[in-house]
Amino acid sequence: MKFIINPPRAQWAELAHRPVKDLAELEEPVRAILTDVKKNGDSAVLKYIEKFDKVKLKTLLVTEEEIREAQSFVSEDLKKAIQAAKYNIAKFHIEQKEMVKKIQTTEGVTCWRKSTPIPKVGLYIPSRSAPLFSTILMLGIPANIASCEEIVLCSTPNPDGKLHPIILYTANLLNIKKVFKVGGVQAIAAMAYGTQSIPKVDKIFGPSNQYVTVAKQLVTKEGTAIDMPASASEVLVIADETANPAFVAADLLAQAEHGTDSHAVLVTTSESFAHLVKKEIETQLEALNRKEILREALENCLLIVVNNLKEAIAFSNFYAPEHLVLAVNNDEYFAELITNAGSVFLGNYSPVAAGDYASGTNHTLPTNGFARVYSGVSLDSFFKKITFQKITQKGIRNLGKTIEIMAEAEGLMAHKNSVSLRLRE
Amino acid sequence: MKFIINPPRAQWAELAHRPVKDLAELEEPVRAILTDVKKNGDSAVLKYIEKFDKVKLKTLLVTEEEIREAQSFVSEDLKKAIQAAKYNIAKFHIEQKEMVKKIQTTEGVTCWRKSTPIPKVGLYIPSRSAPLFSTILMLGIPANIASCEEIVLCSTPNPDGKLHPIILYTANLLNIKKVFKVGGVQAIAAMAYGTQSIPKVDKIFGPSNQYVTVAKQLVTKEGTAIDMPASASEVLVIADETANPAFVAADLLAQAEHGTDSHAVLVTTSESFAHLVKKEIETQLEALNRKEILREALENCLLIVVNNLKEAIAFSNFYAPEHLVLAVNNDEYFAELITNAGSVFLGNYSPVAAGDYASGTNHTLPTNGFARVYSGVSLDSFFKKITFQKITQKGIRNLGKTIEIMAEAEGLMAHKNSVSLRLRE
Repeated sequence: MKFIINPPRAQWAELAHRPVKDLAELEEPVRAILTDVKKNGDSAVLKYIEKFDKVKLKTLLVTEEEIREAQSFVSEDLKKAIQAAKYNIAKFHIEQKEMVKKIQTTEGVTCWRKSTPIPKVGLYIPSRSAPLFSTILMLGIPANIASCEEIVLCSTPNPDGKLHPIILYTANLLNIKKVFKVGGVQAIAAMAYGTQSIPKVDKIFGPSNQYVTVAKQLVTKEGTAIDMPASASEVLVIADETANPAFVAADLLAQAEHGTDSHAVLVTTSESFAHLVKKEIETQLEALNRKEILREALENCLLIVVNNLKEAIAFSNFYAPEHLVLAVNNDEYFAELITNAGSVFLGNYSPVAAGDYASGTNHTLPTNGFARVYSGVSLDSFFKKITFQKITQKGIRNLGKTIEIMAEAEGLMAHKNSVSLRLRE
Repeated sequence: MKFIINPPRAQWAELAHRPVKDLAELEEPVRAILTDVKKNGDSAVLKYIEKFDKVKLKTLLVTEEEIREAQSFVSEDLKKAIQAAKYNIAKFHIEQKEMVKKIQTTEGVTCWRKSTPIPKVGLYIPSRSAPLFSTILMLGIPANIASCEEIVLCSTPNPDGKLHPIILYTANLLNIKKVFKVGGVQAIAAMAYGTQSIPKVDKIFGPSNQYVTVAKQLVTKEGTAIDMPASASEVLVIADETANPAFVAADLLAQAEHGTDSHAVLVTTSESFAHLVKKEIETQLEALNRKEILREALENCLLIVVNNLKEAIAFSNFYAPEHLVLAVNNDEYFAELITNAGSVFLGNYSPVAAGDYASGTNHTLPTNGFARVYSGVSLDSFFKKITFQKITQKGIRNLGKTIEIMAEAEGLMAHKNSVSLRLRE
């Protein structure tokens, strides 16, 4: 943990810099797997599963029996929790539906747009260290609401050749039927190109390690869309002296837990508060597991003291954090000043973990400053919006001259002619 | 023009295939310019302008005097046309604003999202063969509505070292003040990295030739967002026997006019209608300029005859055209069946040129089948959506157990702890 007192603006870029690994050297090995799967389909996929996951599979599709079997391995408490989270996530995402609004821009000229599902989507769910079933909820629920025609889910098989029962339970709860036992680069390749058993999809979603990140980048060049560029997870907490140091410490630790490259930043108006948080982190750390990861991640942890909350907000907007906690007295007022962030948590009782799992917002969010530009995953991510227009004969009479003059000025005479013909009628 | 009668489904992929040039070999020369501009800023930019545009500039920023001067070179008719188009485009795009809706997902748990402008956007406006001032409207109007903090516009200088007066008139009409005389790869580089005089932007928009396309692809790897992947423009017209062959021919020719790689496709239920359209194309062609481009583009033109309109719609959804004209009797009924398209034009009096210029919809649209996945440019393209949540003490009591159980099942004990601490209070 590093203490920084009143950093000048000139230092902000350095403080906001997230060390990003150059993944260029991974491109060659990743491309080799992509090319192999593109050419050889299932047989290449099965080969890489044997190589990387140390398990010899005969088929990739999870069977109905495996799904049935999985139900009994998930506790009733966990089932209830997943269902409660599903309810909230659905409730928040369903409200993102945009109704069709017909707009008459000129008399006789009516324009509208309509959200239309992306036909085929692929969800990549890592499962090596722990089964990330929460990500199935975050991606599968909006995909269902959007009514995507086909939802494909790929997840890494365990050494016994099966998927984790919680993965299967959650996928089944969302009525996702095409679940495949494949992870890593070979999963991205299979969904990008299609194989004998795995359908080709239009857009791939999901968290990733470095190899999968590179694979996702590479397949976009060949026409598969992806959710967003990926890198390490991050939180920035803005706290004044009304905040609870134990809660703030816990949120910073929760962030650190994601991995050694996680970024946890506290920006506070009170130096003594920063010291209390530091102490709390050290105390709470002792009771947690994953201590090695936590200790390494905490080396990047910044405790920044600034003069006032306006300065804290300015730094946060400059940093553009994935997660932002506003543990300040007048949280709703300061929330209005946020211009760059993925997801914002107001007050003392809104831990980031709530958004990670169950409050309703999506947990797939932009990192590494991309929150300046990108939104997190939402219902929009599973739609594209098609525009429509209907022009009547009267409408083209009203608008025709305008189009003719503009087309001519751009030197596009066939464009002009397509209007002139209609005006002459 | 190729006639295809009742193509079997197995042939659809071949018919829908757009020949895309492999741009990999352009990466090296493009990367050289990017790197040079990144390192040497304005001096590198000025060097490439001299090399490619054959003009020696001292400064890049357009002066107020140049803008004033430009006003007198634009005819009053054209000014009025541009203003009329601006009104319609603004009217359509302003309606895309999403209001904040606070949603209580569980008692005490309130979530919402808010559209927030992308801070700095760059508009790239090609101007070599003709000044594409319509694209300034299509990008600048939504950027203004979104209230982006900085709008940068780059366009290729003429041999006299100035920008075309229509470019300057239109930029000024939209109150875009940072207009720079630079085009090509050097313009993309300057906006992606920033130079002494050109600000670094977060997202780059605009049409592109092959070099600019590669430059836009490459800068995304370094963190600059772009509007969408680019390739040749296309139209698909679905027509029944009620359509007007002259109008249909004119729309196909307008498409062909964009360039030799344009795709124009007619899908009709009537073979005799297809012949009438072919004849009309040949007749109209004689009266147009750009004949060489038109003739070459028309070699790719497909005239497809199918059994019925359902089949025509199915083919169109498979093709996913950038522009789709529905010149059919029951156009509103068939519009409901469209699942993949950029922008749809209903009936006999809605030429594609209307959407290109003035009806209100955006003309920056997905090509090459990307209409399956991507939306055209809209107000959304200039926003990101930040999610917010406020949980009360009662809210965390309602939701806490759910989060604890899920975090534990994912093995994230610090996440669990961040909730447990709050529950214990």
